[in-house]
Amino acid sequence: MAVWCEALLFMASRAQLIAEIIRPALAANEVVITDRFLLSTVVYQGHAGGLDPNELWSVGRIAASGLEPDLSLVLDVPVELSGARRNRPADRFESRPLDYQARVRQGFLAEAARRPDRIQVIDAAGSVEHVQQAIRLAVRKQLSAKDQ
Amino acid sequence: MAVWCEALLFMASRAQLIAEIIRPALAANEVVITDRFLLSTVVYQGHAGGLDPNELWSVGRIAASGLEPDLSLVLDVPVELSGARRNRPADRFESRPLDYQARVRQGFLAEAARRPDRIQVIDAAGSVEHVQQAIRLAVRKQLSAKDQ
Repeated sequence: MAVWCEALLFMASRAQLIAEIIRPALAANEVVITDRFLLSTVVYQGHAGGLDPNELWSVGRIAASGLEPDLSLVLDVPVELSGARRNRPADRFESRPLDYQARVRQGFLAEAARRPDRIQVIDAAGSVEHVQQAIRLAVRKQLSAKDQ
Repeated sequence: MAVWCEALLFMASRAQLIAEIIRPALAANEVVITDRFLLSTVVYQGHAGGLDPNELWSVGRIAASGLEPDLSLVLDVPVELSGARRNRPADRFESRPLDYQARVRQGFLAEAARRPDRIQVIDAAGSVEHVQQAIRLAVRKQLSAKDQ
């Protein structure tokens, strides 16, 4: 599949999710938690897939009518550890070679470095309790900042 | 379906068509003729569907890596005539109400007025021979302009 085709399919599914689920939930004043959003497309099809990350941000922002997460958490582990931890068959991205996985990781870290206010890296190499603690801290900080 | 979802699905299919068919054909110096391209998305999901036509142009141009037809021909007939001529069941766009069809027509005419160098309106109310003659003329002019 052409990489732009893949990127646009992810964006199409996200546009539908926004219209059907996310906008109504935000309108009802709910907190919305999603597993992956535009950042993933910027990293997988951009940094790792060869498209221009800035073009993906531009297209994705317009397609999402400017809707953007207040906070994205990147659960970071070394590539080898992430493979070793997987307890199910690899999907079509996970089954790509290690250098692709390394570009994915570097892409997430690069985007987090560019936008530290919106993207936070959580060290996920430790225990479940340790990771959970770090996530709680980051989310609590974000929520109290929103309250002010 | 959310209109942005629909627009992005059309763009995804077009990105694949570009990578798989159009770019190789252009590289082999062939003339490429397609039935509909980005202009249709700008009109159906933009002018008629409520999205911003300029946003659709921007997103679509990036997604097509800047590839744009040298010439688009709009075969124009009054909305009522187009319905009367149809000799098969209406698709999901054709079965929408007349005011939607009218916005589609006005959208095509507005885009042609904005970009007369690239989009030409062909009066298609006449006979097949008449329409074919007008198309031949427009295409011949375009091809000889390219040769120079």
